Amino acid sequence: MSESIRDKVAVVGVGCTKFGDLYDSTYEDQVCDAAFAAFDDAGLGPDDVDAAYVGTYLPHSQGGKAGISLADPLRLYGKPITRVENFCATGTDAFRNACLSIVSGQHDVVLVVGSEKLKDRPGRGIPRIGHQVLGKGNTAPGLFALAANRYMHEFGVTRSTLAKVAVKNHWNGKRNALSHLRMEVTEEQVLNAPMIAWPFGLFDCCPTTDGAAAAIVCRPEIARKLGKDYALVKGAALAVATGRPYYDPTFDYLGFRSTQAAAKAAYEQAGIAPSDVDLAEVHDCFTWTEITNVEDLGFFPKGEGWKAVEEGKTRVDGSIPINPSGGLKSFGHPIGASGVRMIYECVKQLRGQCGERQVKDPEIALAHNVGGPGAVSCVVVLGGAG
Amino acid sequence: MSESIRDKVAVVGVGCTKFGDLYDSTYEDQVCDAAFAAFDDAGLGPDDVDAAYVGTYLPHSQGGKAGISLADPLRLYGKPITRVENFCATGTDAFRNACLSIVSGQHDVVLVVGSEKLKDRPGRGIPRIGHQVLGKGNTAPGLFALAANRYMHEFGVTRSTLAKVAVKNHWNGKRNALSHLRMEVTEEQVLNAPMIAWPFGLFDCCPTTDGAAAAIVCRPEIARKLGKDYALVKGAALAVATGRPYYDPTFDYLGFRSTQAAAKAAYEQAGIAPSDVDLAEVHDCFTWTEITNVEDLGFFPKGEGWKAVEEGKTRVDGSIPINPSGGLKSFGHPIGASGVRMIYECVKQLRGQCGERQVKDPEIALAHNVGGPGAVSCVVVLGGAG
Repeated sequence: MSESIRDKVAVVGVGCTKFGDLYDSTYEDQVCDAAFAAFDDAGLGPDDVDAAYVGTYLPHSQGGKAGISLADPLRLYGKPITRVENFCATGTDAFRNACLSIVSGQHDVVLVVGSEKLKDRPGRGIPRIGHQVLGKGNTAPGLFALAANRYMHEFGVTRSTLAKVAVKNHWNGKRNALSHLRMEVTEEQVLNAPMIAWPFGLFDCCPTTDGAAAAIVCRPEIARKLGKDYALVKGAALAVATGRPYYDPTFDYLGFRSTQAAAKAAYEQAGIAPSDVDLAEVHDCFTWTEITNVEDLGFFPKGEGWKAVEEGKTRVDGSIPINPSGGLKSFGHPIGASGVRMIYECVKQLRGQCGERQVKDPEIALAHNVGGPGAVSCVVVLGGAG
Repeated sequence: MSESIRDKVAVVGVGCTKFGDLYDSTYEDQVCDAAFAAFDDAGLGPDDVDAAYVGTYLPHSQGGKAGISLADPLRLYGKPITRVENFCATGTDAFRNACLSIVSGQHDVVLVVGSEKLKDRPGRGIPRIGHQVLGKGNTAPGLFALAANRYMHEFGVTRSTLAKVAVKNHWNGKRNALSHLRMEVTEEQVLNAPMIAWPFGLFDCCPTTDGAAAAIVCRPEIARKLGKDYALVKGAALAVATGRPYYDPTFDYLGFRSTQAAAKAAYEQAGIAPSDVDLAEVHDCFTWTEITNVEDLGFFPKGEGWKAVEEGKTRVDGSIPINPSGGLKSFGHPIGASGVRMIYECVKQLRGQCGERQVKDPEIALAHNVGGPGAVSCVVVLGGAG
């Protein structure tokens, strides 16, 4: 039988760039900024790293393909560096594979970097996205909106509830120096913003963002020797569903099976129940996505996640704070970077380093990506070393 | 210190499609053909698989991106499936990560599929390759030719020696029902073929190919229970060098550091010397590449690999048979598939199932990819279960 990953991997350093329109920063700049922030945090350097994983969804003309995406900017030569790609779960899955490589005993210290340049893409991504997705009329807002509409119809939810997710996450993101859209919004602003794909107005959608984040993992005994305030990986699970959920006649449009399966596996590894989670960074690519996520992750029964938003339970001072970082909605969503950025926030929260948006005394934090929509999900559970 | 992977992973099933111009076969068809051949070989089915890895370099409109590349064609739902990309080492690195996931204890049985559609690419790869590479005048033949010319100048080698690599590999490939260019060629034909990039004529270059290959790995105790003729993974190592070797003033253009580093690590894991290897599948994207590879892998000193070709040492009946499958040169090179296809050949050779191209009683087989050129290399060492 498979063994659990629980308490076999420590996160000893995390780093993150400012997220935003980074026209003055190359892909390589971002990688260096995030990785060296993590190195500084861990008290380590590139020479201490045995192996690395890079998560990039859309390669950029400046980087993002193969192991050289990290080897050249960080001078990590002669070492194994694997690129992982898994839609919007790219970052968390790169982290998961780094953890497996530690548990396998093959490596002592492994660097994970998620990085994405989405804003200026000479000759690459945007034309390709255009051909693949926009050319068929299936935009990300449009695809998620199909499910959001069904959910709202089924459970009697209005756009006003969705807007409260944006208000909350922008409140958090305003208190985060690294977030892309570092401003608060009112419910009225969200409701009156230009319509993108009903029910999603502009402020129901996460922005298009450049950025990178990094984490350094090792075995717990190495972390103890380093004498740093590390976090322990309690569970890390990936689940893949169909890439065509909307053609599946058994799909109810109310939640994502990949999240449900990944969460179940991660909780089993961690030996916890959803109620043990003290805060979660979940994939709020759209306001509605956060609502279905908190149900799929088991924090609330299906059809009741929207009530939690109305009741303020998901605020920083609520019973289960969701996206204290500001989330994809305010912090931004450089695809391959987002999962690692969530792990960065979880570790900072577990250490109590988040200032005004700090959750009170958290012991268990969860990071969650879902992409596809619904095709791929990855859940990582982290705990303080205590 | 890092532990060795040696004898901790068994390969219990391998499968491979016909390689070639597969216009009648979709990406999903290829995945199914390769995976079910491996399932049949192992006496297992999709339900027996805990996790999977897919290696694809250039996503195709029919698949190749994220875990759904395997989930939908194979109905592998609710399980972790990671896409790995690492230039021409994509297939071997997907296999390497699958092995790490077994050694980590997280999974019992893991499927690896390498698959690539290069011939018909509606709206994708070719235009993108065009922009990235051809648009700058840097084709793969041109880049490898720069190093080949230097090597030939340094060691006094002529095109006639390079041609003998093609003659040998086509002789092997002619005896392989699955190879793309299943025909023999004469040295005269190779030398008189249209020039592509001096010193490479058409028959010095591997073809552009569609195809897929699959392998199933598990812990050795599970392999023993299955009662099949399995192989053991002795070593699996990846090394990344600079992505810009030709801008590196310390680069001598005579061999690839990534191969040298990956080979050293793989031999250390396996506890063997290069002389212990009984056959090798090496990355002969061009005739010269095979010659530098057999030196970088330690089978011959630098500058003497070309003599081994002249002396027939690398033929199926030679002292170190190289590319008994026919190699990239004759078998074809669907990028992400090639590494897994090499592992397929190694396992078949270790089992003694290769008919006229069978190497006599091999105990250790090696698979090697190099891409970039020279940026990324992966070496896998396999042994019979004895």
